[in-house]
Amino acid sequence: MATDQNKFQAIISHCKEYGFVFPSSEIYDGLSAVYDYGQYGAQLKKNIRDYWWTSMTQMHENIVGIDAAIFMHPTTWKASGHVDNFSDPMIDNKDSKKRYRVDHLLEAHAETLTPEAGDALLQKMNDLLKENDYAGLKQLIESNNIKCTVSGTNNWTDVRQFNLMFSTQLGSVTDEASEIYLRPETAQGIFVNFLNVQKTGRMKIPFGIAQIGKAFRNEIVARQFIFRMREFEQMEMQFFIRPGSQKEWYAYWKEERMKWHQSLGTPATSYRFKDHEKLAHYADAAVDIEYEFPIGFKEVEGIHSRTDFDLKNHQEYSKKKLQYFDPEINQNYIPYVIETSIGLDRMFLLTVCNAYEEQDLSTPEKADSRVVMHFPAKLAPIKLAIFPLTKKDGLPEIARQLMDECKSSFYCFYEEKDAIGKRYRRQDAIGTPFCVTIDHQTKEDNTVTIRYRDSMEQERIPLAEVRERVLKAIL
Amino acid sequence: MATDQNKFQAIISHCKEYGFVFPSSEIYDGLSAVYDYGQYGAQLKKNIRDYWWTSMTQMHENIVGIDAAIFMHPTTWKASGHVDNFSDPMIDNKDSKKRYRVDHLLEAHAETLTPEAGDALLQKMNDLLKENDYAGLKQLIESNNIKCTVSGTNNWTDVRQFNLMFSTQLGSVTDEASEIYLRPETAQGIFVNFLNVQKTGRMKIPFGIAQIGKAFRNEIVARQFIFRMREFEQMEMQFFIRPGSQKEWYAYWKEERMKWHQSLGTPATSYRFKDHEKLAHYADAAVDIEYEFPIGFKEVEGIHSRTDFDLKNHQEYSKKKLQYFDPEINQNYIPYVIETSIGLDRMFLLTVCNAYEEQDLSTPEKADSRVVMHFPAKLAPIKLAIFPLTKKDGLPEIARQLMDECKSSFYCFYEEKDAIGKRYRRQDAIGTPFCVTIDHQTKEDNTVTIRYRDSMEQERIPLAEVRERVLKAIL
Repeated sequence: MATDQNKFQAIISHCKEYGFVFPSSEIYDGLSAVYDYGQYGAQLKKNIRDYWWTSMTQMHENIVGIDAAIFMHPTTWKASGHVDNFSDPMIDNKDSKKRYRVDHLLEAHAETLTPEAGDALLQKMNDLLKENDYAGLKQLIESNNIKCTVSGTNNWTDVRQFNLMFSTQLGSVTDEASEIYLRPETAQGIFVNFLNVQKTGRMKIPFGIAQIGKAFRNEIVARQFIFRMREFEQMEMQFFIRPGSQKEWYAYWKEERMKWHQSLGTPATSYRFKDHEKLAHYADAAVDIEYEFPIGFKEVEGIHSRTDFDLKNHQEYSKKKLQYFDPEINQNYIPYVIETSIGLDRMFLLTVCNAYEEQDLSTPEKADSRVVMHFPAKLAPIKLAIFPLTKKDGLPEIARQLMDECKSSFYCFYEEKDAIGKRYRRQDAIGTPFCVTIDHQTKEDNTVTIRYRDSMEQERIPLAEVRERVLKAIL
Repeated sequence: MATDQNKFQAIISHCKEYGFVFPSSEIYDGLSAVYDYGQYGAQLKKNIRDYWWTSMTQMHENIVGIDAAIFMHPTTWKASGHVDNFSDPMIDNKDSKKRYRVDHLLEAHAETLTPEAGDALLQKMNDLLKENDYAGLKQLIESNNIKCTVSGTNNWTDVRQFNLMFSTQLGSVTDEASEIYLRPETAQGIFVNFLNVQKTGRMKIPFGIAQIGKAFRNEIVARQFIFRMREFEQMEMQFFIRPGSQKEWYAYWKEERMKWHQSLGTPATSYRFKDHEKLAHYADAAVDIEYEFPIGFKEVEGIHSRTDFDLKNHQEYSKKKLQYFDPEINQNYIPYVIETSIGLDRMFLLTVCNAYEEQDLSTPEKADSRVVMHFPAKLAPIKLAIFPLTKKDGLPEIARQLMDECKSSFYCFYEEKDAIGKRYRRQDAIGTPFCVTIDHQTKEDNTVTIRYRDSMEQERIPLAEVRERVLKAIL
């Protein structure tokens, strides 16, 4: 798969230049793998978040949403397996003291080999990783004579596990203080609330609980812009089902989620399913929905058949019965779970990558180009830009009236300076689907020029129709 | 001011019973001062959040929103003063090892005294707190012979400061790892992005930057349900202005924010302004908007004239010029700032307390009562409940058609079991403003019974008008 690093870099620059994404704490030279969303980014992100939330909860009678805290009781993460298993094998160079993720070290070395030798090395690495064979991994590094880029030596420590959870101290009173974690996934907030929601909401299986929220992972090598961050936002849904029905529900959600992605107009060829080669400790089936970023196909969402792993473990650790009485079959059981888990920041990056286009608009007479963001209208940060052609002759007053009429329904942008062409281009760069210009003719016949972002076509329509035209496009 | 602890307890129970708020990690016996929002709470909270966001950003052309990370460069908190000043004076009992916040210890003692003696004690305490006179505070505790409730002794340590920020380690590689904080307020995410937003958004002073997000404070004594939590959500707006204009903008935002509160229909008498007695280190004026909770008047929102304190310090610590060139007066300056800062969780609690009513519906013939949540329709978690009178005769099919017509526009709830009266009461308890019943007459004349939550009145209206009726009420 061809990748296009130049395009990816251009998108990152565009995100910075037009207020979509800034490096975090940039005035202090940034914080590694943490980003802030700027004025258009925050709105785009909110629109994606709301679209997911509405599709999953409002449109599904049997799915409700919750909003659990980031802080959870520490035993949660014993039960979920994160304390014991949520770690990466690492190795330190004894001379430079530099630490590496074992897989990254071997992958980097594989790239320096012939394709055949590289593939063979990676195959061997994957086998050893599957078996948690740390001694074997160390030997693989040594036998390939892989060296630290800093010290230049191959003097390595043993391979060890490094847990990816952030921890902090809750409480100030010495005897009360306890080490807690920042949640590495939102899913457990759903599992520990399963009974509360089921009982107070009188939910009947099958039903789902959805949640959106921040999660935190102390990634060793966080990279590729907002693709892998240490602080990120997840949109997860756990669907509780009768044991034995997991195959059919897994197939159902796999298809449903792909339909959701395509409902936003992204070409079907930009997506693919990728079955997990190695299943996580909790899953009996798992697939990724991958999108073709400029840096290649990458995971955006996962659909996982989690069995009763989580609820069973929480029942064991909490000694509270986490069972459901199924009146249809007159039985008590611990439900099985199908999970859909999508990264909001990755969905944001997908949306930006899919929307970004550098268009050559040159004519034989004149060189010209534009950068345009083809966001779906319902996701665009600004829906309508309103431009009086000039700052006088009462045109701003008419434009202001239109603003007042529209701004309680959707985001509008008002601008009266600079040439109209320049104003259009600035709206193209942030993906505003509609621009309306008020000119002298408006005063005569109450019509305006509406200009469409994607086609750049212009049309004369009645002023009174503008609001409805936009509303129709964004719903 | 009379307080009503019974009512407050009843509201807390109601929140739990009807899926608004659950104690966090309840199956593990909870986590102190942390709560999860259940299925109706999450939706109510989202509706409040969206209402604020829309009022502040969409409705104000000169206010934009951002979404900065919780993790920030640690120097941010040096510059803001939090590393040095964000702390509470504490004292430990040497026998029990129990730690107390000095003000809480003295307040509790004051309540056991006569009103005059109690007021005198609190006055003395406030004077000592203002002067950071720790020795004096210790002496005040000892001279009043205040005892630890656990050990029963008055054997106290010295008074010391305890910082309220949570810290964690970022990065895994030893030489890269650094101690960072979970932000104790969202405001600094706005200040460090001030120039990025101003430049990329081509903002002109006066303008504002709004943000909603989680903040964390390691409160010593976190209490009163969700009123004071260790993890909470803030909705903040920093308004950047020309130095010297802070008095007028402070007055403007004070009034604007009070209008916002009253736009939700809460009685004006439930609110009051309370000027800060002791100004924070960054402020030249500060006022709280207080609401009369069942536990008394308490702060919900603060309006603060923060001067140029934050930007000036960030400029000093970062060595980056954080200035604005004002074309109207042809000058460079560091802007002054008016802040509006509201706690989303407190606004949630306010909304719940204001909505809650236990109504006695008894008649001479029959004792009866209901609990009803009088939420403003635009904030209610569910907007419309749809009930077929019976499960047969084609009534569910008509109800389903209405669901399909309405559910893409707003949250609907479908239920076909139990007596209608019982179904109404369940909707009253979660604050659903409209219920519609489909009965046999519907099949004849296409009318339905619409039932209003607050008045409990019922009206016969055309089925075709239901959607518009609800839409009109929630916009």
